[in-house]
Amino acid sequence: MQRSHCLALDADDPLAPLREQFTLPADMIYLDGNSLGALPRSTAARVQAVVTEEWGQGLIRSWNTAGWMDLPRRVGNKIARLVGAAPGELVVADSTSINLYKVLSAALAIAREHAPQRRVIVSERENFPTDLYMAQSLAAQHGMQLELVEQGQAANRLRDDVAVLLLTQVNYRSGALQDMAAITAAAHAAGALTVWDLAHSAGAVPVDLNAAHADFAIGCGYKYLNGGPGAPAFVWVHARHVNRVQQPLSGWHGHAAPFVFTPDYQPAPGIARYLCGTPTLLSLAALECGVDTVLAAEPLGGMQALRRKSVALSELFIRLVQEQLSAHPVTVASPRDASQRGSQVSLTFDGDGYAVMQAMIARGVIGDFRAGDQTHGDADLLRFGFTPLYLRHVDVFDAAQTLRNILDSGIWRDARFARKGAVT
Amino acid sequence: MQRSHCLALDADDPLAPLREQFTLPADMIYLDGNSLGALPRSTAARVQAVVTEEWGQGLIRSWNTAGWMDLPRRVGNKIARLVGAAPGELVVADSTSINLYKVLSAALAIAREHAPQRRVIVSERENFPTDLYMAQSLAAQHGMQLELVEQGQAANRLRDDVAVLLLTQVNYRSGALQDMAAITAAAHAAGALTVWDLAHSAGAVPVDLNAAHADFAIGCGYKYLNGGPGAPAFVWVHARHVNRVQQPLSGWHGHAAPFVFTPDYQPAPGIARYLCGTPTLLSLAALECGVDTVLAAEPLGGMQALRRKSVALSELFIRLVQEQLSAHPVTVASPRDASQRGSQVSLTFDGDGYAVMQAMIARGVIGDFRAGDQTHGDADLLRFGFTPLYLRHVDVFDAAQTLRNILDSGIWRDARFARKGAVT
Repeated sequence: MQRSHCLALDADDPLAPLREQFTLPADMIYLDGNSLGALPRSTAARVQAVVTEEWGQGLIRSWNTAGWMDLPRRVGNKIARLVGAAPGELVVADSTSINLYKVLSAALAIAREHAPQRRVIVSERENFPTDLYMAQSLAAQHGMQLELVEQGQAANRLRDDVAVLLLTQVNYRSGALQDMAAITAAAHAAGALTVWDLAHSAGAVPVDLNAAHADFAIGCGYKYLNGGPGAPAFVWVHARHVNRVQQPLSGWHGHAAPFVFTPDYQPAPGIARYLCGTPTLLSLAALECGVDTVLAAEPLGGMQALRRKSVALSELFIRLVQEQLSAHPVTVASPRDASQRGSQVSLTFDGDGYAVMQAMIARGVIGDFRAGDQTHGDADLLRFGFTPLYLRHVDVFDAAQTLRNILDSGIWRDARFARKGAVT
Repeated sequence: MQRSHCLALDADDPLAPLREQFTLPADMIYLDGNSLGALPRSTAARVQAVVTEEWGQGLIRSWNTAGWMDLPRRVGNKIARLVGAAPGELVVADSTSINLYKVLSAALAIAREHAPQRRVIVSERENFPTDLYMAQSLAAQHGMQLELVEQGQAANRLRDDVAVLLLTQVNYRSGALQDMAAITAAAHAAGALTVWDLAHSAGAVPVDLNAAHADFAIGCGYKYLNGGPGAPAFVWVHARHVNRVQQPLSGWHGHAAPFVFTPDYQPAPGIARYLCGTPTLLSLAALECGVDTVLAAEPLGGMQALRRKSVALSELFIRLVQEQLSAHPVTVASPRDASQRGSQVSLTFDGDGYAVMQAMIARGVIGDFRAGDQTHGDADLLRFGFTPLYLRHVDVFDAAQTLRNILDSGIWRDARFARKGAVT
C-alpha cells in the first residue's frame, strides 16, 4: 500500500467534497471525531447570528419570531432521519446522561406496571460509565438490581427477572457494534424492554430504530453529529410507548401548554414530554449546523455511503497497522470483522500507550488514550475515530506512518511524553 | 416629574457607564430583562473565540488547554459572589428545572433520614410552574404530598409534618420579594429544610445565602445574569449538607474521577457532585460574559448599588403610573413597599391587558403579559422589569409616557393588537 494509492482513492471518492463543510486545523490529522466532532464551516456564522441578531436585536421576541420554541423539535426531526425515526418522534434536550435518566425511568415504570416481578436492569461492565451511574441511581430508587455482564453477553442474560436491557450500540472503548435488531428481538421475546445509547452510532453507522422495534433511545450531539463541545443530546421513544408514562423530569417545556402557567403538570402528547427546561439556544443552533453536515450526504447515498467509506478507512488503517507495524507489539483491539465495528479502531500497545499517543499528538495526529480497568484485565487502548465526512484515505496513511515512525524511532520513550500524575 | 429631571438623574448616575457593556437595539426600551437579559458587548467575540479557536483549532485538546473542564466551577465561583456563597460552593449545570430536581431530591433524602414522619413539601400556588412540576414528580416518587399555599403564607404552614419549603425568592408574576433569612430561620426552627429558587433574584437583588443559613438554592442564567437564551443554570448547597447525600442525576461529570471511567459511581466531594453530563460549552461561555456584566458593578458598590438603582427606577415608574395614568383603570399589582419587591413592577389593567402590551411592543417598549389563573381569581398582569445595569431613568419616563399615550388614545383597541387564539 503506497501513499499514491491513497491519493488516488481520495480522487475517486464521491464523498470527498463533504470535507469542505469543515474548518480543520492545518497540519493536523484529526482522529478523535468520536469524542468531539470537527467544526462545520457554517457554525460560526450561525451562532453569531443567533447571538447578535436573534438574541441581541430580537431579544425576548425571538422565542416566537426566530423559531426558538420549535428548535428542539426541528433539530430532532433532522436527527430522526439519521437513526430511522419518524418525524415528531425525536427531540433534542439536555445531556445524554439526563436523557438516559428519563428513558430508563420510563422503561422501569412500564416494566413495574406490566411485569412487577422483573427486578433486574442488565447492562455491560464496559458500557460508557455515565450510563451505568444513572442506572445505579435509578436501580437504587426503584429497589431493583443493576447487573453488569461482559461485552456482547447481554442477550445471554435474558431470563424472566430482566426488566430492561441498557446497551450502547457502539462500545466507546473497542468500537464493537451490537446488532440492535437481533438483540431487541431477543429482549422482546424474553419479555424485556431495550434502552439504546446511540452516542457512538448516530451519524457513524446506519441506525434504524423503528425497523429494529427498539423501545427507547438516546444519543449525543457532539461526537459524529459535530454539534460542538457539550452540544445538547437527543431522545427518542417508540410510538407504542411514548404516551404510556410520564418521565420524572417534568419541566415546563415538556408540559402540554407550557405558557399557560398552570400549577399542575400535564405532559405534552408525544416525544415533547421528554423536554424539560429551557433549551440552551446557542448550543442547540450549533448542533443544527453539525447535523446538517451529516444530512448533506443524503444526495450522495446518505448513511449507507458514509458507512462504506468509514469501513474503507478503518480497514485501510488496520491493514497498514498489520503490514507496517508487525515489528512492534501493536494489536488491533476492535472487532476484525467490519460488520461488528463502528467507526473507530482501537489498538493495544505492549508498553506505555499513553506516551505513544502523546508522541502522536505532538506530531499532529490526534487520537486518544483510554486506560483499561486493570482490576478486570482490560487493556489500555489507543483510540482512532474514522469520520468519513472529513477524513481522507491519505490521512489514514499518514497517521499510520506517524505511528510507525514513533515506534521505529522509540521517541515515545522521551520524558516529555510521559504521564504526569493520574489521568483525570 | 419632567423628562428633563430624569435626564438629570441619569447624568448623575454613577452606574450609568455600565450600560455601555450592552448592545441594545436602537429605538427600543427593553423592560423584559427579567425574562431574557440583554446581550453583553463581550459575548459575541467570546462565543466566536470558543467556536473558531477553542473548538475549531483546539478540538478535543481544549478540554484541558482551554479550561473547559473547569468552566462550570469558574463561572460558578463568579455567580457565588452575587449570592453570598463561598468559592467552591456553587456550580453551573443543566437547567433550573433539572437543578431543582437535584436539590429537592437531596433535601427529601435528608428529611427521610432524619425526620421520616415529615411527608409534606410546601410551596406556593403562584410559584413558577416548573418548580411545582418537578416537585410533583418527586413528591409522587417519594410518597409525599406537595401542598400549595398562597403567596407569602409558607411560613404559616410550618407544622411538624413539613419536610421542605420550596420557595422562589422573587415571585415571577408580582415581583414580591420574600425575606429569605426570616423564612429560613422559621423553617429551621420548625424542623424543615429550605430550597430557594433565585431565578428572579440573582443579579437583581442582594442575596446572602450563607448569612441566611439557607439549605439549597438554584437559579437561572438567562434573566438578570444576561447569559443568553437558555443559558445553563446554577446550583448551590450549604456546606453542612453538600456531602451528606448523593443527588439522583449521578452523571459522569459529578463523579469523583470522571476520566478514570470506573463503572461504579463515586460522587465528587463538594458541589461538583451536582454536575451531571458534559456542560454545554458555547452557552456556558456566553453565561460567563453575562455574569461579568454584573460583577462589573463591584467597584461601584456591587449588588447594593444595583439594588438602589433598581428601587429608584421601579419607584419612578410607580410614581409616573400613579401621577399620569390616574384616569385609566391601571393598578400597581406589585408590593408597594420597595423592600418587599424585586426588580420588576407588574400592573393590572381593567380591560384587555394583552392588547395594551402588544400596542406598547409595537411602539418599542418591551414588557410582557402574563394571563392570570381565572379559576383562582388571579389578575392578568403587565410585567415590566427594571434592570439597573442597562436602563436609564429616561427610559422609565418614556415607557410610562408610551403607556399613557396608548391608553389616552385608545389605540390598544385596534384589531391588530388583539389576541389571536390562545397564548402559547
